[in-house]
This record gives sequence, structure tokens and C-alpha cells, in this order.
Amino acid sequence: MTQNPWSYRTTDAATDAEVDGIDRWWRATNYLSVGQIYLLDNPLLRETLTRDHVKPRLVGHWGTTPGLNFIYAHLNRMIKARQQPTMYIIGPGHGGPGLVASSFLDGTYTETYPDISNDEAGLKRLFKQFSFPGGIPSHVAPETPGSIHEGGELGYALSHAYGAAFDNPDLLVAAVVGDGEAETGPLATSWHSNKFINPATDGVVLPILHLNGYKIANPTVLARISEQELVDLMKGYGHKPHVFEAGMDDESHESIHRRFAAVLDEVMDEIAAIKAEAKVNPNMERPMWPMIVMRTPKGWTCPPKIDGKITEGSWRAHQVPLSSARDTDEHLHTLEDWLKSYGPEELFDEAGAPLPATTALAPEGELRMSARPEANGGLLMKDLRLPDFRDYAVDVPVPGYGPHEATKVLGGYLKGVMAANTDNFRIFAPDELASNRIQAVLDVTNKVWNARSEFDDEHMAHEGRVVEMLSEHQCQGWLEGYLLTGRHGLLTSYEAFIHIIDSMFNQHAKWLKVSRELPWRRPIPSLNYLLSSHVWRQDHNGFSHQDPGFIDHVVNKKAEVVRVYLPADSNTLLATYDHCLRSRDYVNVVIAGKQPQASWLTMDQAVDHCTRGAGIWEFASNVPDGEEPDVVIAGIGDVPTMEALAAVDIIREELPDLKVRFVNVVDLMRLQPEKEHPHGMSDREFDQLFTTDKPIIMAYHGYPWLIHRLTYRRTGHSNLHVRGYKEEGTTTTPFDMAMLNDIDRYHLVMDVIDHVPSLGTKAASLRQRLFDQRLAARRYAREFGEDLPEVANWVWPDARGTVDADVSATAATGGDNE
Amino acid sequence: MTQNPWSYRTTDAATDAEVDGIDRWWRATNYLSVGQIYLLDNPLLRETLTRDHVKPRLVGHWGTTPGLNFIYAHLNRMIKARQQPTMYIIGPGHGGPGLVASSFLDGTYTETYPDISNDEAGLKRLFKQFSFPGGIPSHVAPETPGSIHEGGELGYALSHAYGAAFDNPDLLVAAVVGDGEAETGPLATSWHSNKFINPATDGVVLPILHLNGYKIANPTVLARISEQELVDLMKGYGHKPHVFEAGMDDESHESIHRRFAAVLDEVMDEIAAIKAEAKVNPNMERPMWPMIVMRTPKGWTCPPKIDGKITEGSWRAHQVPLSSARDTDEHLHTLEDWLKSYGPEELFDEAGAPLPATTALAPEGELRMSARPEANGGLLMKDLRLPDFRDYAVDVPVPGYGPHEATKVLGGYLKGVMAANTDNFRIFAPDELASNRIQAVLDVTNKVWNARSEFDDEHMAHEGRVVEMLSEHQCQGWLEGYLLTGRHGLLTSYEAFIHIIDSMFNQHAKWLKVSRELPWRRPIPSLNYLLSSHVWRQDHNGFSHQDPGFIDHVVNKKAEVVRVYLPADSNTLLATYDHCLRSRDYVNVVIAGKQPQASWLTMDQAVDHCTRGAGIWEFASNVPDGEEPDVVIAGIGDVPTMEALAAVDIIREELPDLKVRFVNVVDLMRLQPEKEHPHGMSDREFDQLFTTDKPIIMAYHGYPWLIHRLTYRRTGHSNLHVRGYKEEGTTTTPFDMAMLNDIDRYHLVMDVIDHVPSLGTKAASLRQRLFDQRLAARRYAREFGEDLPEVANWVWPDARGTVDADVSATAATGGDNE
Repeated sequence: MTQNPWSYRTTDAATDAEVDGIDRWWRATNYLSVGQIYLLDNPLLRETLTRDHVKPRLVGHWGTTPGLNFIYAHLNRMIKARQQPTMYIIGPGHGGPGLVASSFLDGTYTETYPDISNDEAGLKRLFKQFSFPGGIPSHVAPETPGSIHEGGELGYALSHAYGAAFDNPDLLVAAVVGDGEAETGPLATSWHSNKFINPATDGVVLPILHLNGYKIANPTVLARISEQELVDLMKGYGHKPHVFEAGMDDESHESIHRRFAAVLDEVMDEIAAIKAEAKVNPNMERPMWPMIVMRTPKGWTCPPKIDGKITEGSWRAHQVPLSSARDTDEHLHTLEDWLKSYGPEELFDEAGAPLPATTALAPEGELRMSARPEANGGLLMKDLRLPDFRDYAVDVPVPGYGPHEATKVLGGYLKGVMAANTDNFRIFAPDELASNRIQAVLDVTNKVWNARSEFDDEHMAHEGRVVEMLSEHQCQGWLEGYLLTGRHGLLTSYEAFIHIIDSMFNQHAKWLKVSRELPWRRPIPSLNYLLSSHVWRQDHNGFSHQDPGFIDHVVNKKAEVVRVYLPADSNTLLATYDHCLRSRDYVNVVIAGKQPQASWLTMDQAVDHCTRGAGIWEFASNVPDGEEPDVVIAGIGDVPTMEALAAVDIIREELPDLKVRFVNVVDLMRLQPEKEHPHGMSDREFDQLFTTDKPIIMAYHGYPWLIHRLTYRRTGHSNLHVRGYKEEGTTTTPFDMAMLNDIDRYHLVMDVIDHVPSLGTKAASLRQRLFDQRLAARRYAREFGEDLPEVANWVWPDARGTVDADVSATAATGGDNE
Repeated sequence: MTQNPWSYRTTDAATDAEVDGIDRWWRATNYLSVGQIYLLDNPLLRETLTRDHVKPRLVGHWGTTPGLNFIYAHLNRMIKARQQPTMYIIGPGHGGPGLVASSFLDGTYTETYPDISNDEAGLKRLFKQFSFPGGIPSHVAPETPGSIHEGGELGYALSHAYGAAFDNPDLLVAAVVGDGEAETGPLATSWHSNKFINPATDGVVLPILHLNGYKIANPTVLARISEQELVDLMKGYGHKPHVFEAGMDDESHESIHRRFAAVLDEVMDEIAAIKAEAKVNPNMERPMWPMIVMRTPKGWTCPPKIDGKITEGSWRAHQVPLSSARDTDEHLHTLEDWLKSYGPEELFDEAGAPLPATTALAPEGELRMSARPEANGGLLMKDLRLPDFRDYAVDVPVPGYGPHEATKVLGGYLKGVMAANTDNFRIFAPDELASNRIQAVLDVTNKVWNARSEFDDEHMAHEGRVVEMLSEHQCQGWLEGYLLTGRHGLLTSYEAFIHIIDSMFNQHAKWLKVSRELPWRRPIPSLNYLLSSHVWRQDHNGFSHQDPGFIDHVVNKKAEVVRVYLPADSNTLLATYDHCLRSRDYVNVVIAGKQPQASWLTMDQAVDHCTRGAGIWEFASNVPDGEEPDVVIAGIGDVPTMEALAAVDIIREELPDLKVRFVNVVDLMRLQPEKEHPHGMSDREFDQLFTTDKPIIMAYHGYPWLIHRLTYRRTGHSNLHVRGYKEEGTTTTPFDMAMLNDIDRYHLVMDVIDHVPSLGTKAASLRQRLFDQRLAARRYAREFGEDLPEVANWVWPDARGTVDADVSATAATGGDNE
């Protein structure tokens, strides 16, 4: 099929035939939209409308729909005239009926769902299924062909649009921003995305701010400021606004169409000029990208008044303007007149199929917006070329060797990934790439930056595969748009602040859950998080930066789409991330520290351990073959695992007869029963690891109760004692922080003593000594501002003599940005 | 003390004495800031600086601090000259040392913490405690006098500032916005707050956009767009920008101070003019409020280069520019020179107290920004005048009477609250007040709106106590600012989308936790949520609008600050909300439906039940006195309770011999052990309610595993079977939705049969019939789009004949906005 991106205008203005086609498309899609909201039967009004033809429960949103249909019709003309590959993202996602209607006229809907056929029976099914039990949602959704954006939760239309445009240099993404949505924070900052797009190598986003004036029950801010302020605002955001207004007077639709077609032509020519310049001058200054302000009445073309109240052009048109069409003749007749106002007899043939003139405007094949392959990103997805992560392993001759900075080690690997995938892999970060220590990737790419440069900028360029803006919303939205269009990437953030996008994660997980149930939606790359600067090492920042609860949030979503990993050292982090980058249709949450810390496993051991997801670390266990342990000590997460191992060290010294099994968990979902999560262990496996009757002393990275939630059905659960973060802590030393939350080595040994009744008098005095040592450690921290050397420089016995004892303490005060 | 808000300029320009005072204040606070970050001892450099005087761990943030100190000094002059009550909010909260330094010079710090005395010993303690174990956080925090804003998580400075300004007509809130923070979504939309402020009855926010050019490791967007774009942006937001730039050349500090003093005078005069006009013309058009763009180098006045790299004016100054002051002589000497550059000997006397000239600039008493009573809101808090909630009760002659719309009933009560408290109670909503059906409050107040009005606007006015903008971030931020300054309010939102402010809730809960530990911080009104349009009734909107996980998120925070209530009907909702509005220092999450539903309790019963928090509903139980039940059926939340009661109805009919105890829980925290939460039940209470050995079949509003987390330590936990939301559902009928997640009446009875082994053959056949009935109910929904009449119109036996059977079904299709 011919595509001819960024061509100039081919005619001086819309032809009569085009205008007729636009109007027919608009009328047909409006008709089909109203039909979906209201009708159960009689889809072509071939009979007089009766109450029985009306749905008993009227659920859906009309208000935004006619505007969306209007834009779709005009984009169709533009696409056909210019052969411009174009994708359509609509912020007001509750305008679902409009997108379904256009997709039906396009032919895509019937291709995707043959049961919705091109005849009266198909129309009846099309109408009935909308927002109906067993049917389709009222919003744009995964079920909607051509869509990557649900829009149920508002605010992310532009972030998604720019995410789709990255590295798709021929693609136009037309993105409708509702004026309600425009009030949200994420949308308000997403206009600045133009500073992160490269005219030469990325596609173009055309924002269309649709001012229909009202939200659910209020006017909108942007519709009620002066045009001067609105124009200033858009210019301030770096856009060139084209203001279009229609529907407020008795101007004919023909005239309106001619005017809007001219605006769209002008805008597309401006874009073509920018793209042409970028081709010859990739370092061109950031252009003022055009955008359109489109002011039309809310619910445009619906009855002007209903029950004596202004409806068209009012918030009353937001949802279902005629709420009693099944209950009163007056509403019923108004509905019939409304539907007939679109002239269905001029739009559909005898059998119920759209007439050729109705669909004459549609482009063909993949140029149909509802058939854009980018909107079913799995179709276009290419596997990443992944270097062998083993090549980036740190050498671990003995357990406890090091220290290594896990995320820095991962950065080396990611640099390899970045170098091997120069057009379909990106890293997004809210100004935390370097702070999270994966900045090695900047050896092979730059941070994209299309605002002003200054002489001492480092690694900033018009083209770059790292995208950093201090907005978690933007990072998440861009990444989602990038993944949904079939590319790969990750988001790195401080652990605490990833909660900023809790709700965006929810929507993406829901999208994945539904997509997996649609055979025509092809798998897309997983959404990978790398959360560092985690709860246990907020030495600089303290309490506000401590929150491990994203894990808890994530595991509420469907088990088949969420994965949580807590690698305890550099090599396990490498093995974990390689796995994540190969996976599809998941959300992978990986939490790892950036501070220097001992490594425990060789690369081969790490691979085996990560494959199992949870397992015994023999080097820290002393249970003779064939015997049962007296106690199981477990660590989940890097700092907790280190403290748990330090506890084992104390036990070896002080309670040498105690048989200890050491377990580490890297894949948190292993703890769940197998029927709850695909990664879940069988009870047999769990019992073999943790025993059914021995005390389990566990140090866990997050809120301890999550572990109980995951394991309460296990036989040995009543023996499980978990230490984790309890919202205690402030700006303090690492060990003081551990002590504040009772996951420190001393407390863990005290826990062992408390739960192994067979330990006698010796243990009691040891307990007292440990208690005193904790007090001493706290005193030291409060006096000197750093941890007791014996604590800070603790080294696992096997590694003593191999490690520079001062390294960890020194590194902890390093000047790295945090 | 004299206060004289909104006076005009008293002199033509800053006097020499004023300029000298400003500069001394600035130098002293800069000195004290650097001292806090670096010094453990030798606070006045009376000895040569040695490595031992330097902290071993250098943690803190310098970059933003000198700019904050500069503004503080200038505001001091303005306050003193005009006697203008002024509060200071700084977005870059990591500039903690600056605020501590100014508060120390003000005298407030020593008044609050006498140990930090006005001498060398006090200075030493001041320096040591900063970002030190057992000391104070590195950020502005609850510990900082004069602060209501932590700033660890960026984005909310302006929302908090406007929240503080509401209903404080004499108060100026000077709010510094960092240019990093300015990139966040919440901040980007919060500039629009000026459309929600009333010049006549509210205070004034003076935004100061501090462009120091860099974030942690990147330049900032707003520092790298053209001045024209920046000015356009601010104008577009409705502000009049005053651009000030300094520190980029060799202009003397004296000259810089004179210029900034003039800008501040001009701005304050513009504000005075607006306030004067508003006094005589309360309906004046929305003014262009002035704001200041202040461009200065990051880390201003620190060493220009360190280790050969540009530091002042670079991202390298973000944190601790001299990271090796304890390790290298070069850094040590640079540090000493840097400290001496402020001339400490001209600033402090022999004993170490600030010289009179150093503090001459400070206003007195409450005019000191660090002593503003609004910043310790509990000082100013007045109890709400609460009407008797019993007066708003619905009549419940028999259980099952109704239906009533719970939130609408609550709306009547809130109208009474609103009418009785006309200057210290507000409701915030993201365009969901009417949708959540508490719009009765609009009978006695308006929605504040200072953008353009149109003729058919309803309840919109320049003055109004309902604040609606489609931004959950704004609503939360405004409410926090309002509460922290001692007033009362609530936020109503759809349940699913409250996750948008998960991270803001985190920070507020942390703030409350710390504040409670500070005796000088007085209790403030609780943050009250009213979450409606909840997971079980998303008939219009489907899957994207279904998420009950905010509860799970909330209960991760400290037990002493969080409360979760799930009232099952109108009267329990009334009793619950009255309790919440009287409480202090909590976050109260209240979840209640807006759809018509039966009521179960009379007002007296509701009061008793809410006082207990959880209890047996005798009307639905049939256990003879002194006997044990065969099964406990429990409901938590309105829809689950209704389904659980409908299950009891089936059991009465089909298994009349089964002894059923019915339990309802309204205060979720009652389920926790008493040592985990102040509301927790003792084991004895729990066992009495739920038994230790009988099956408990529970229908719960949210994710079922939370209940297990709360109860896993209870004796009878292994008998507890919870049904709740499992991420199954789409746009569908209410009962179909219940069935999709297995909390429907039929499934609950099937659960009873499965877990009461004594039920015999009859039960098995009943189970089969229930299974068939579920299939029939699903078939009906998919055929007709509504629920089986026998299901939709089900009425509790006691109420049959009293209830119009069609009401609930009819109401469910009503045209109310959702």
C-alpha cells in the first residue's frame, strides 16, 4: 500500500466531493454512535421507533462523541489526500461509540469481529453489544481496533501519543485532548513533550485541544479563559495554536467542513515544512509544532433542548441526554427525530450496509486509522538483540566478595542492550538515571533534549534514547505509548515515588489483562521497572523517601500480568533483568540497590537461583544432609538478605550447634500458592524449602504483612516471623535504619532465640548481649553520624581478607547524586 | 502585634540600612546552611578547620538553598515594612538547611527547641543535628517551624499554598516553585488555581518560580525555553510575570538586593491594588495576579569550580558540592574559604549569638514567617459547629426499608454542616460532587469559579465553598493546605481514581505521624475522604473504573493515623461521617454507594453499630440465645452486605434449620489485633463475634486478601472464606458484576454449603439449583441488558410490602451524571 508521509497539500482546498464525503462520514458515525447508546433493535429505523427498541439501561457518553467523529472524518480526508500514515489517540476515552462507529465504517471492525456484519443484523448486534453485559465497554478499550489508549482515567493522551511517535519517523499521531482532561496535572505538563521529540527521527504529534466547554457537571477552565490567555498558554508550551470554532451559530455544516479542512491542510503543510527542514538539517532549532484548538458545542447535533433545558452545548449532554426514551413518548419521539436528523436512509443501503458514498472518504488498508499496525504493537514488535548478560557478571570467587553497586553493574549490561538496539529500546527516568547509577548507557547514547543547550551540558542531544523529565507521569505515559506500539523499554525511578503512577500502572495492567483475552491483540513487550534508591538507603532523604508499598499495590492486579523481583546482588539482578527484557505482556517490578554491597552468587549460581526464584543458599546453611534444620533464616531483597546473613554469621559464632537453613527469595510470586499465581510454588516445594514445623525468621524488603498475605495458606505459616519496613525511620545511617525497623542482624538473632525453644541459658545471655550491642550501635550512630565500623565493615566469613574493609563505609559517603 | 495587610509601599526604595540587613541575613543564613551540611564542630571557625570538624557522612542539599535564603531575607524586609502577615512555602523542600537557618535567626527555632541556644554551643548542636541520626531530616519537615510543606515529593507547592490562602483574606502565601518541580504534572496544572481564588475573601498566593537551571543531573525545561515562551506560559496561566535575573555576572550583591527589593515592592503594590479593588468591587473580573520569575545560579555563592569542574550554576551544586572535605586537604580548605566568604565574624558575636545587625531585618512575633500560626494550624483550629446528624436520618421502620441513596442522604447532612460553618469548611471534588450525589450542599453555597461565567451556569460564583477542578492532585493538595492551616474539609472522588493521589496520601500520612510526635505541633482536623461511584457499581464505565485498592494502600501506613469505614447504609454513613468530622490528625477513608439501596438500621441502631464498629445484626440471625451458630455470614460494604443478606434470605427459605449469625463490619480496622491498631478488637471480642471454629462466609467490598492479612493471627482464621473483588468485570449490570467476582447471593450460599459439612443431600441439590439460577441470571443480563427482576427487586423479608418493588430497578437507570 502506498504511504507518502509528510507530503504537501495536493489541492488548494477540499473538493465538493470531499466535503460531501466528510459530512456523510460524520452523519453516519454520529448516527451509529447514538444507535449504540440507545437502540436494542430497529437499527435503521425501518419501523416506527417503539419503547421496546430502546435499551432498558442507557449507559454511555454522548457529549464528546460528535467532535471525535468530526475529527475522524477530516483526518480521513487528509490521510487519503496525502497518504499520510496516521494514528488516532483520543483523550476523552468515554467517546467509545464514536471510535467503534468509525472502525465499523472503515471495515476494520467487521474484519476483526465478523459477527458484526455489514447488514441490518450486524448493525443490530453492533448497537446491542455496546455497554451491554457480555458486550463491549462504553469506553475506547483494548477491544476497539486502532486504539492504544483507554481514557477511562484522564490525563495521558499526549504522553501516550508522544510515546507512540518516538522512533516512528513517518507516523502522525493525532491526539485529541479533552478540555476536562486538560485540567489534570499529567496532561498539563505533557504539552512540554515537544522538548523531547526529534523532528528528524521521530514521528509527529498533532494535539487537538477539543474545547466543548464542559466536564460532567462543570464548565472547563480552558474553555473559560480568554482566547488571548489560551493562545499564550499554547505558545508558552512551545506550540503554534490554530484556533477553530464552529457550531455556535447557524453556519452550514458544509461551510464548517470547508473551514476545518483548510485548517487541517495548513497544519499539515506546516508539519511537512518542519519535517522537510529536519531532513536536511537534523540540528535545526526546536520548531513551534502546530496544534489545533477546536471549540465546538458539547453533544454537538443532539437535540438543543430536552425537557426545556439547554442540552446541546451544555454539560447535560455529557452522558445520555435522553434518559427516559424507554419511559416517555416525548423522549422516545425526540430520540427518533434525533436519529433521523442524520438521514440514515441516505447513508445505508437496503440491506443495511453503508452506501459507497458514505465510506468513500476512507483510506485503504493500513492507512485506515482503525487498522494502524502501530495500534496493535505486537504485530510490529521485533525481539531485542540482547547481549549475553553473563558477560557483564561480576567475579564472585567467594560469597561475600565485593562490594559491587548492583544497578551500576546492570548499567553496563543495559549499555550493551542500548548499543545493540538503536531504534526500538528506550530508557525513561524522572531525572534519576544517574542517581540510580545506570548512566553507563550514556556512553552509547544521549539524553534527548530539544530545548536550549549550554556549553557544559553532558550527554544531551536532539537524538537520544534516554528520556528524562522530572515527571513520573510523563515517563510512565511515554513508556506505555512506546510499548503499546511494539517497542521495548524500562522506567527507572526511586522506589518511593513510583507511587506517583500507581493509577497509571492500574490502567496498564487492566489493559494487558483484557488484551491477553483478545486473540487478535498480539503480545507486546513487558513494562519493566527498575526501582532503586530504595527504602533502606535513604540516608540523604529520610522518611518522605521511604515507601516499599508499590509491591503491595502491584500484587492486587491479575496474577497473570504482574511479576515482582528482589535480587539480592549484582549477578542475580543481571539474570533477572535479562529475563524481564525477554518477557511479553507483563509488568515486571525489579527492586535493587545502588549502594556498594557484597555479592553472594557467581553468575552460574545466580542463573540457577533466578530460575528457581527461591532457594537454599548452601554456603550460609549448616544442616547436614538428610537432616532437618532447627531454624530457617530467609532474606528477600538486598539489604534484608545482607542483614540475615550477618545474623547467620553471629549464630555460627555464638550458637554453633544450631542447624540453620538459609533461604533467599528473588521472585516474590514464588511464595504464593500455585493456584493463585503462575509462578507460585506447590505446597510440597514450599514445605521442602521452609519446613512445616520449624521457625522461619525472615527479613523482607517491604511491609511485612504482604508476606503473610502471600503465605497464609501454607502449612508452616504459623511459624513464620517476618521483619520488614514498619514506617519507622528518618534520615539516618543504614544500620540505624535497619534497627529502627527491627530487621537488623542483632534483632534477627534475637528473633531466632525467641522462637527456638531448645536454645537454653547460653542463648538468654546472648540475647542480652545483642540487646546491648544494638544500644551501642545506636549510640555510636547518634554520636558520630556513621555506623559502628564493626557493623559497616562486616564481611561474610568466606570473604574475609579478600575485601577492602573500608570500601563499603567510604563508598556510602560518596558524592554520587541521590 | 500590629498587622496591616495589603498596605502600599512605605518608601520609594530599599534604604541602605535595609539593603545591609538583607545582605547580612542572606550571608548569615547561607553560612548557617553550609555549616549544617558540613560541620560537626568549630561552628564559628574560631579555630582552623580540620578534618575532624567535618561530618563523616555529608548528606544534604545545597543547590536550592541560597536562593531560598535570598527570598526569605527580602520577604523579611517587605513584611517589616508593610506589617504584612506572610507564610512561606518552598517547593524545593530539600532546601531544609535554609529554612532552619532563617528560623534560627528569627528566634523561633530556639523558642521551639531551647537546646539549640543562641551561642556557640547551640550553633554546634544546630549544625550537628542536621541530617544526622537522632537529629532532624535534611528536608523541610514537620520538625521545621513555620512549615506545612515537606517537599520531599515534588509538585504540590502551589496547591498547598492556595489551600492555605483560602478563607485567610489577610494572608500572603509566598510560594517558591523549583524549576525541577515545575516539570511535574501536579505543579503544571496548579498554576490554574488562580481561577478558584476570590480576591475579596481569600488570601493571596505569590508564586516565585525559582529558575536555578538544573535538577539532580539535568537542566530544567523552564530554564531552557525562551523568555518569550516563559512569559507567554505564565500569562497563559493567568499570571503577570515579573522576571528577575541575578548572579550571572559580577553585579554587586548590594545592587542585586536593590533590584529585587524593587521588584518585590512593585509586586506587593500590584497585589495591594487588587485587594483594594476587591474590597469595593467583590465581583471584579479575575485579575492577573503577579508572580516572580527569579533566575539565579544553582548553588549561588558556593565555589565556582570544584575539582576543575563548574559547580556554582551547575547541577553539580545540587547536593553536597564538596564531597571530600573530610578526606582531602584541598576540599577542606575550599570549604573553609567558602564558609569564611560569608564573613561569620561580622555576623555573630563573641559568644556565638547573631549580632543585632544580623537580625535587624526580622519582623517580630507572629509576623516572623517561621512563627506564623497558620503553619501550626492546630493553634487556630476551631471546632466545627455540627448539626445533629440524627436529624438527617432516614426512617427505617423495618430492616430492608427504602431504597435510599446513601451519599445523597449524607449530602443533606453536609448541607447542614456547610450552612453552620461559613468560613472554615470546604468540599473539594474533581468534578464529581454531583455525580457522587452530595450536591445538596449547593443549596447553601456555590462552587467557587473565577473564570468566565455564562448565563446558564448553575451554582458557580466568585465565592463558594465547593472547589471543583478535574484534578485529583489539586483537590488533595488544596485540602491538605486547608487542613494544615487549621480548617476542615473533605475530598469526594470516585473510588478507583483516588489512586491518582496515592503518593500524596503517603506524604500526608507521614507528616501526621511525625507531627503527632512533636508536642508543639497541635492536632489538626483529619483528612476525610468520601469515595463513591465504587467498584461494584460501574455500570456506565466498566473495568477502568473498578479499583478498591486504596484501602490496601492506606492500611500500610502507621495504624495511629489511618481509619477505614465501609458503612452499609444511609444511617451508618451519617453516623460515620459525623465521627470523622470530629476527629483530629487522622486520615479517614469512607466508602459508600450512591445508588438506591435498602437501609438496614434505624438511626439509634446505626449509632450503636458504628460505636462498636462491627457487630451482630440480630434481625438477620436466627441463633437461639445461648447457642452457637452453625455458620457466620458477614458483610463489609454496602453491596456485599446486601448480597450477604440476600444469601441469608435464601438460607432461611431453603435451609431453615441452619443457625446463621449475621455480622456486619463498618470500621475495617476492628478486624486487626488490638496491638496492631488502636481500633483493633481483642481476640476475645473477635472470637465472640466470629467464633473460633465455625465457618465464616464473608462478602467484602475490596480485594479479599486484605481481610486475610488483617485476621491471619485470629484463632478462627482458617475457617474464614472471603469473597471480594478479583479484577473481574466490565461494563455490566450490578448483579452480573457481583457474579463475575463470586460475591453474589447464590455463590455465597454455595460457599455455605461447601463449608458446613453437616448439611446433607438437600443442600447438594440446592447447590445445583443455585448454580442453575446463576446461569439463568447471567443469560438474562446478556439477553436483556438488565438484571432478572427477582434479583434486582429483591427485598429483605421484613420489608416486603413496604417497598415499591420497581424503585431500585428504575433508579438504577436514572440519568444522574456518573
